[in-house]
Amino acid sequence: MQPANFASSSKNLAMLQPENSQPLAVIGTVAIDAVETPFGKKDKVFGGSAAYFSYAASFFTPVSLVAVVGSDFPDEYKGVLQEHPIDLSHLEVRAGKTFSWQGSYESDMNSAKTLRTDLNVLLEFNPQLRFAKAPEFLFLANVDPVLQMQVIDQLERPKLKFVACDTMNFWIGSKRPDLLKVLAKIDCLVLNDGEARELTGDFNLIRAARKIQEFGPGTVVIKKGEHGVLLFSGSRFFALPAYPLESVFDPTGAGDTFAGGMVGYLAKTGDLSFENLKRAVSYGTMTASFTVEDFGLEALRRIQLPDIESRLTEFKKICSF
Amino acid sequence: MQPANFASSSKNLAMLQPENSQPLAVIGTVAIDAVETPFGKKDKVFGGSAAYFSYAASFFTPVSLVAVVGSDFPDEYKGVLQEHPIDLSHLEVRAGKTFSWQGSYESDMNSAKTLRTDLNVLLEFNPQLRFAKAPEFLFLANVDPVLQMQVIDQLERPKLKFVACDTMNFWIGSKRPDLLKVLAKIDCLVLNDGEARELTGDFNLIRAARKIQEFGPGTVVIKKGEHGVLLFSGSRFFALPAYPLESVFDPTGAGDTFAGGMVGYLAKTGDLSFENLKRAVSYGTMTASFTVEDFGLEALRRIQLPDIESRLTEFKKICSF
Repeated sequence: MQPANFASSSKNLAMLQPENSQPLAVIGTVAIDAVETPFGKKDKVFGGSAAYFSYAASFFTPVSLVAVVGSDFPDEYKGVLQEHPIDLSHLEVRAGKTFSWQGSYESDMNSAKTLRTDLNVLLEFNPQLRFAKAPEFLFLANVDPVLQMQVIDQLERPKLKFVACDTMNFWIGSKRPDLLKVLAKIDCLVLNDGEARELTGDFNLIRAARKIQEFGPGTVVIKKGEHGVLLFSGSRFFALPAYPLESVFDPTGAGDTFAGGMVGYLAKTGDLSFENLKRAVSYGTMTASFTVEDFGLEALRRIQLPDIESRLTEFKKICSF
Repeated sequence: MQPANFASSSKNLAMLQPENSQPLAVIGTVAIDAVETPFGKKDKVFGGSAAYFSYAASFFTPVSLVAVVGSDFPDEYKGVLQEHPIDLSHLEVRAGKTFSWQGSYESDMNSAKTLRTDLNVLLEFNPQLRFAKAPEFLFLANVDPVLQMQVIDQLERPKLKFVACDTMNFWIGSKRPDLLKVLAKIDCLVLNDGEARELTGDFNLIRAARKIQEFGPGTVVIKKGEHGVLLFSGSRFFALPAYPLESVFDPTGAGDTFAGGMVGYLAKTGDLSFENLKRAVSYGTMTASFTVEDFGLEALRRIQLPDIESRLTEFKKICSF
């Protein structure tokens, strides 16, 4: 058992608020990506679903990052995570190469074309959780549903209050039975519109969400990129437009950042009411709106919580009528 | 010059409110459509951009309908228009057949495939406006921009306070110079996301709207179907999600109904402030949400203004956070 290993960067001390925060953990990928957009190309971008999630969530609350990297993982990237209250005790380093994804975006910037996926050390990842204080909030970022289930099985309810999960078309197509087992165990599924349609075979997103709720999660969040987000919880519904951006530089990580902002805010407040879920979705939207302004975590590294709050204040004016 | 020819149906007398209403006119098509959706097929559907617009707008204020039909136009359809305060003095009947459109929708219900367009009497349409009281609000529904300009040229500012216009990809591609002349003369362009992208060559809708504003209209409304609507006016911006519908039966006419609800509300209130534009956009959204629940005007014929108001009250709760 290792002690929590939070960064002591003074920049984010004000955000720690450990007395109000519920412990939050995320399992997912930490990656060295290569990204090409109409605005530029970058070969070594620090990314991965759990990296985006934990950096975003830790604006709101401390996060434990459960992931694996290879021996090639740069200290510089570890330093980026250490800028925020991110516990790296469960960041395993294995001999071999770090997971890597290469993708490109066409001018519509709405969907990435995957050019290459090298799983590398992710193939041997078998996380053993050894928390001093078990998390009450858990996010299962986009990895193999078998791996997601392994993590759920190591944590116990009712201590574990809220489990949210992401997935992707690859798992929906190739590991549907495993994914359905995960869905039966979680509280909230966060996925994009195309994935919701593929998972349910229903084009209508309202009906698709209702069908997903029948698989297990009482709460379903459907991300629609530039068109905003839909939230379904029990029989209740909320729709939020996207923050209007005149330029989207690189959409990679926007979905994971959204989930990080959302679940981070929920864990910070410990409030799972519908009204607070709506606020959480709006914090997720605002946090993600920064991510897409630069490659990787670069734009998030330049901001602090007050920047997110101030964009939210502006956004509320835009949406009110 | 003919006198205004309003229906005396008691059902809608309460909506007339002529003392508060600004005269509103629409030019566009009145059509006999054939529509095929995944839920059914109907051969003779009363439709056309000006029919949807005027029926929707006349929930809020009296409307003058400027259009042409053939000698085959059924009395039954005329009777439908007469259910609402729609002045038919400028509904010209010419020897020949009524304009007709045939289209089908795939399961996504987001875009119609045009199977056939028979212009028929529309080819000879040369509207001569003879208003006893010239309209202060004008909507140029989707017709040839040359025809739209003919109508603008027959009305005078400053008596004419607000001109809004719709268009479609066909005119953007084939009559761009004429369309640009129209844009220079109007206050508001209402178009869908695909059309905004085609008109400006910009995929980003925020930038596309700014470019359209440079063509002339200070206000731009971009309809995104199931994803809601974006409003740009001067430097201000408003985004509204769509009303959540578990089933969309037939999307035909939704855009024209939206415009009818929006401009009808503006004409009723006579208030062109940004706050009122936002309210107008929300009324347009609510009115259109009924249209798609049945073929043609059928769903709109079953409701009254309080039904629109009550859906708006419900919708405001969904969107507030």
